[in-house]
Amino acid sequence: MLFHVRMDVAIPHDLEPDERARLVATEKERALALQRAGTWVHLWRIVGQYSNISVFDVGSPDELHEILWSLPLFPFMTVQVTPLARHPSALVAGP
Amino acid sequence: MLFHVRMDVAIPHDLEPDERARLVATEKERALALQRAGTWVHLWRIVGQYSNISVFDVGSPDELHEILWSLPLFPFMTVQVTPLARHPSALVAGP
Amino acid sequence: MLFHVRMDVAIPHDLEPDERARLVATEKERALALQRAGTWVHLWRIVGQYSNISVFDVGSPDELHEILWSLPLFPFMTVQVTPLARHPSALVAGP
Amino acid sequence: MLFHVRMDVAIPHDLEPDERARLVATEKERALALQRAGTWVHLWRIVGQYSNISVFDVGSPDELHEILWSLPLFPFMTVQVTPLARHPSALVAGP
Amino acid sequence: MLFHVRMDVAIPHDLEPDERARLVATEKERALALQRAGTWVHLWRIVGQYSNISVFDVGSPDELHEILWSLPLFPFMTVQVTPLARHPSALVAGP
Amino acid sequence: MLFHVRMDVAIPHDLEPDERARLVATEKERALALQRAGTWVHLWRIVGQYSNISVFDVGSPDELHEILWSLPLFPFMTVQVTPLARHPSALVAGP
Amino acid sequence: MLFHVRMDVAIPHDLEPDERARLVATEKERALALQRAGTWVHLWRIVGQYSNISVFDVGSPDELHEILWSLPLFPFMTVQVTPLARHPSALVAGP
Amino acid sequence: MLFHVRMDVAIPHDLEPDERARLVATEKERALALQRAGTWVHLWRIVGQYSNISVFDVGSPDELHEILWSLPLFPFMTVQVTPLARHPSALVAGP
Amino acid sequence: MLFHVRMDVAIPHDLEPDERARLVATEKERALALQRAGTWVHLWRIVGQYSNISVFDVGSPDELHEILWSLPLFPFMTVQVTPLARHPSALVAGP
Amino acid sequence: MLFHVRMDVAIPHDLEPDERARLVATEKERALALQRAGTWVHLWRIVGQYSNISVFDVGSPDELHEILWSLPLFPFMTVQVTPLARHPSALVAGP
Repeated sequence: MLFHVRMDVAIPHDLEPDERARLVATEKERALALQRAGTWVHLWRIVGQYSNISVFDVGSPDELHEILWSLPLFPFMTVQVTPLARHPSALVAGP
Repeated sequence: MLFHVRMDVAIPHDLEPDERARLVATEKERALALQRAGTWVHLWRIVGQYSNISVFDVGSPDELHEILWSLPLFPFMTVQVTPLARHPSALVAGP
Repeated sequence: MLFHVRMDVAIPHDLEPDERARLVATEKERALALQRAGTWVHLWRIVGQYSNISVFDVGSPDELHEILWSLPLFPFMTVQVTPLARHPSALVAGP
Repeated sequence: MLFHVRMDVAIPHDLEPDERARLVATEKERALALQRAGTWVHLWRIVGQYSNISVFDVGSPDELHEILWSLPLFPFMTVQVTPLARHPSALVAGP
Repeated sequence: MLFHVRMDVAIPHDLEPDERARLVATEKERALALQRAGTWVHLWRIVGQYSNISVFDVGSPDELHEILWSLPLFPFMTVQVTPLARHPSALVAGP
Repeated sequence: MLFHVRMDVAIPHDLEPDERARLVATEKERALALQRAGTWVHLWRIVGQYSNISVFDVGSPDELHEILWSLPLFPFMTVQVTPLARHPSALVAGP
Repeated sequence: MLFHVRMDVAIPHDLEPDERARLVATEKERALALQRAGTWVHLWRIVGQYSNISVFDVGSPDELHEILWSLPLFPFMTVQVTPLARHPSALVAGP
Repeated sequence: MLFHVRMDVAIPHDLEPDERARLVATEKERALALQRAGTWVHLWRIVGQYSNISVFDVGSPDELHEILWSLPLFPFMTVQVTPLARHPSALVAGP
Repeated sequence: MLFHVRMDVAIPHDLEPDERARLVATEKERALALQRAGTWVHLWRIVGQYSNISVFDVGSPDELHEILWSLPLFPFMTVQVTPLARHPSALVAGP
Repeated sequence: MLFHVRMDVAIPHDLEPDERARLVATEKERALALQRAGTWVHLWRIVGQYSNISVFDVGSPDELHEILWSLPLFPFMTVQVTPLARHPSALVAGP
């Protein structure tokens, strides 16, 4: 099942630079791993913002929550989750 | 280039039923044609709302505007367009 | 899986009284049937508003959308859907 | 009587880690105790957010306020309280 | 128990004048009756708006909902209900 | 003349505990004194929030401003002032 | 005492042209009369909008409400009233 | 002097088609005339919306208001006016 | 030409007391000087808020920007500027 | 292709003065360079705010994102990007 997720990132400017770099790097690794696993099916940057629009293909809302909650940058994110359904005019179902 | 588009549809309840049916049918035809053309690359229904989230792959903002402006249901839509860029953690570029 | 749904109803004041009564009655029948089926697990009235807060237990977002889209009063509703997950401090899981 | 309560938690990132852990742990104990007492009747996590949606069954608004005000994480919460009434289409009354 | 209630009234300008006058008159009668009964304890006009701020003293949220739902102007109102508790610095409890 | 005032308090979590206690205590003394003087005529706690809804009976807007501006917690408050008038359906005038 | 008032006018496009002209004309007469009386002390047009920003000098909030409520265009206005006080850096008090 | 103006157009769907066409045509003539006069210096369509972003070069706010107020579609527009100044990093001043 | 300006001031509570006093004092001097010069024509305090509503009479938007940008408290202000025009029902033009 | 960009700058008041000066200076250099390159085609200051309204002429959304993301003040900006299209009433196309 598909969920549309918008993540707005706001890392405090006074966070230790090393800690910031570590977070950003581990976030990227997690994102790549989840994409390889076919869970994080779309990941786009919103032009001009430290934000992304993503689509996740998961087995349940609980699974999605665990994924988002465990993202390294989660503490510095504002997240909006929108459940998706098949559109009657969609040529193909799915992500 | 990719644009994220949200469309919220609000057809007046006192619109002629035939006119409504005609609009909805021609809207579906247009959507299917644009998907076959590879322009309307994603089309999902937002659960619980007469709304969709779409992604368009077009040559320019002007082209996107012409498409949206020409949709049969456009007069009854609230549309939000968000330009997308490649995300540095995206496994693959594109739609 | 659980979804929190808020429905705000706004029936135009100039809708035919008979049509209004028919819609309200069939809405109630649908609500009762879905509750008996164990799908619509909670249904509360928001004090002072023609609105409800509900919790649905469904198999997928698509199933939830079909239910909401088919409600007789859907055309006159503003609907907000919030996916729920198990809370780490919840004594028991589920609705 | 029932109250729908949404709690959005925002713990400052520079709070002492020990203090943070203490707060989170005592919050969980309080939540479990209130659930055992039949006061905190529903507690769900909002997917993707450090937030919950709860339903409380209390004897009065004052009682609810005392409970919320005394939660260890209260100073870091944004709380919205919505009084609930029995819905005319509800199969059963109550939580 | 006390509830703070704001009511914003918006009567369609094309409502039959007689119907409008009837609604306004019966609304006034209901308001006076509820005040005499000690239920509607405060009723003030917001300067410059067809709105009021009220305080109700009722036995339960359900009772408040029945009162508001039954007001003749309810169909043309936007209502916000805020539950009140005793303030620790209040010289006296109550309305 | 009557003014409806909502005060939302947000004391920074890193304020010196002694300073915080001093502010809260002197705020309470001021509130009690103003109530005894018949100026602060209603003071209720909003359930679940560090906020109050009050009604002031003052001689002029300037007088109200001086009172609010001089409250010890004023620097940490968001204040909304709404002027009130007599409601045509009010059984009695006044606070 | 001074009140800042913003009035946004939205006359339905299907209102009878004669009725519209009558309302606008009587509104102007009332405005001019109130200005001559020294009550409506400032009246400016907001550039690009059918709105004005005004300042009223009245004896009480009740008096202001009667004035606004009796304006011919009141039924088609959204009104925001902000009570003003003397500013500590104001060279002169008053309007 | 420069003013940034956003215009959102919402023509009622039940407006007479001839009247609509007349309005749209005369609006275009006015826009072209004002552009030739060097007053309306920029006019862009917002992608996906019946809205434009414009920049006007006028002699005073009053002049701008007269222009906007006299546009044929003004009654069906929501207009936001933002005064502009020279930016310290602007290579050249002006429109 | 006239501009309506709202200034909401929010000085961080942890700003050095001496610096705060210096800023507030120099702000007052500037305000008095601009009022004497006939530029800052109206300055009122919004009741209950560290905010003012002002009207400026300036030669251009650029001049207004320079004035506002140079106010000592500017870095701690949220400023909204609304250009004003003569109202057709205004008895007299001007501030 | 054209994009309308609004940038609201909020530099923390406790940022090192030297660091602040460096950022502002390098930001200006970047802005001037991009204007010379014909990419940053319009740059205006919003009166009364540390904000600008700009128009960029770029080859793609990705190019725009790289530009904005690389601005020295980007970490302290809120950015809104609005894609523009040719307006049917525009005398000339382009910036």
